[in-house]
Amino acid sequence: MRVLIAPDCFGGTLTAREAADAIATGWHEAKPDDVVVQRPLADGGPGFVDVLHAATGGDIRYVTVTGPLGEPVEARWLSVHTDGPDATGRHVAYIESAEACGLHLIPKELRPQVCETATTRGVGELIAAAVASGTDADDNDVIPAGASRVDVVIVGLGGSGTTDGGAGMLAALAEADDGAGVDLTGVSLVAASDVENPLLGPHGAARTFGPQKGASPEAVERLEAKLAAMDVLEPVSDISGAGAAGGLGAALLSLGATVTSGAGLVRELTGLDAALDDADVVVTGEGSFDWQSLRGKLITAVAGGAAERGIPCVAVAGQVSVGRREMGAAGVQEAYSVSEHVGSVQKAMEEARDSLVTTASHVANQWSR
Amino acid sequence: MRVLIAPDCFGGTLTAREAADAIATGWHEAKPDDVVVQRPLADGGPGFVDVLHAATGGDIRYVTVTGPLGEPVEARWLSVHTDGPDATGRHVAYIESAEACGLHLIPKELRPQVCETATTRGVGELIAAAVASGTDADDNDVIPAGASRVDVVIVGLGGSGTTDGGAGMLAALAEADDGAGVDLTGVSLVAASDVENPLLGPHGAARTFGPQKGASPEAVERLEAKLAAMDVLEPVSDISGAGAAGGLGAALLSLGATVTSGAGLVRELTGLDAALDDADVVVTGEGSFDWQSLRGKLITAVAGGAAERGIPCVAVAGQVSVGRREMGAAGVQEAYSVSEHVGSVQKAMEEARDSLVTTASHVANQWSR
Repeated sequence: MRVLIAPDCFGGTLTAREAADAIATGWHEAKPDDVVVQRPLADGGPGFVDVLHAATGGDIRYVTVTGPLGEPVEARWLSVHTDGPDATGRHVAYIESAEACGLHLIPKELRPQVCETATTRGVGELIAAAVASGTDADDNDVIPAGASRVDVVIVGLGGSGTTDGGAGMLAALAEADDGAGVDLTGVSLVAASDVENPLLGPHGAARTFGPQKGASPEAVERLEAKLAAMDVLEPVSDISGAGAAGGLGAALLSLGATVTSGAGLVRELTGLDAALDDADVVVTGEGSFDWQSLRGKLITAVAGGAAERGIPCVAVAGQVSVGRREMGAAGVQEAYSVSEHVGSVQKAMEEARDSLVTTASHVANQWSR
Repeated sequence: MRVLIAPDCFGGTLTAREAADAIATGWHEAKPDDVVVQRPLADGGPGFVDVLHAATGGDIRYVTVTGPLGEPVEARWLSVHTDGPDATGRHVAYIESAEACGLHLIPKELRPQVCETATTRGVGELIAAAVASGTDADDNDVIPAGASRVDVVIVGLGGSGTTDGGAGMLAALAEADDGAGVDLTGVSLVAASDVENPLLGPHGAARTFGPQKGASPEAVERLEAKLAAMDVLEPVSDISGAGAAGGLGAALLSLGATVTSGAGLVRELTGLDAALDDADVVVTGEGSFDWQSLRGKLITAVAGGAAERGIPCVAVAGQVSVGRREMGAAGVQEAYSVSEHVGSVQKAMEEARDSLVTTASHVANQWSR
């Protein structure tokens, strides 16, 4: 029997790769004869670079950039050389904006204080480093053999702790190279986002996502006013995705970026469809399996793909809070709660890996034939 | 130079396959040395079966079913046998609901009169025929060698002229087989839809889509009340996609269907991603290139996929009415209006193919290097 393990990350406890590995371990312990294939998933948010690196290879490049609170953080970008037709290969840089401005980089207790000042400057520094790669301006001492200018820069959006409308990023790009600015001529700039919110208004960056970043109602309104006052964002403010990552989406759009689906990109590059073709059963999962999971693009892509092929899909999650009908409509036959299986939410969080391993063994005993 | 031609259908004038062929012809006339690859597109609406048949092969099966006005119409379903792992192949039936209840089957002048009575009965008859296929109850005299029971039934939603909440379909399924009903045990039922509307309310089937099917404001409210009174749909009425195809989505959900993206399914089965990998330039298009195109999943999937690869994408459309910034955000560098190119909307409609061919030649001269 062939089992496809394709989970999202488990909130603050396990990355998607760690979760896939734990589920695979548990399944293998229960059913050692089954063939287990792992395809950890992500959208443009946390895990984007990690999951793409596992799928496509390429080189991880490290850059020290300005974190959301102004402190230095080590961030990565992924350099991939693709084969094009007629030997016209392309050099693609994948950037995970959350590595430079993610909510996880801001301690919980600080969020109410810093939500109006947290900056995306480091995202601009990452883009500058990627574009400089393979040129004389490269930060690295040694230019790798075969290095070439980057043709495509894909910036994953999601999980940000900032609501600065991308002001920090724009400033970093303008100030790079000793004030000469970053030259994006000939570079295809892409924002990988699964958020369709505009910049402003009730569905905008401040009012929709501000509260979960620590903003009080008063702070939300100040952020809204600040975003509305950024002239450079005005022409793109209504475009779907402008409100992603605290308005970082709008700033990228103002630079001419194209918006594409981060989840779709990951699905394609990880070869999820081919893996589904070869599976007899599919296991997906995430930290909290709730109504948001069923509106999102990750779990539904896995489960819908399983349904199209007539194969069962089950979910394993830290906590489960969806009805059977909603679950069925998304293509999930059964959802298993790790917290319930190990007896407490606390244990499921603290011993995240072990708890997931034992739950996965239980699932294997139920679903392996 | 390699050119990928991947259009949607052109409204009421050309199917996606015809449009792709016309664009390819025009391009070839201007640039005979270019390699032109066609990948016509569709979502769950009109063109679904046609495009999938071209992509996957399989057998088209014809069934005479009840049309939206009660008249007999000839409808088709596509029978595909897939290779599964360990020789566990599956038999998939693709059904395009618009073939049995499409708006195009209802003359424009009749729509205001029939919008409250038009029925999805024929969709149920198509499903019944597909499920009976390969069994003794098959309508066909000869069971083809190797015929097997259908494992998966995928019903494409979109372009319907009905707002009956799938009542006709449910009745046909219940009455089939001399009143014994259709047995869906063991069949994976999938609704292929790109509409996220719920059944009821301001974003529901009647109020959002009723007017374009000919319903007056009074008729819309009567349809809303009728849908709200269907007890069988109540448990699924809030699920995303329940409001697709005049509530046919809800009826399928009530039968346990999983909702998946029709555009995503077509993208995968037609091999769009691999075709993008091999292209130097991409041409997409549709009848009217407007703000709805940029909110939809078809054109944006093509153009976004091109941007991810750093290759240019242009659109050819009967009429163009989007701003450059919106276009750029979706990944389209330039849009060409057939109406403008040939001098009038009327000519573009009446001589649809020839007009598209000459416009495509013009585009080729601009973009072929």
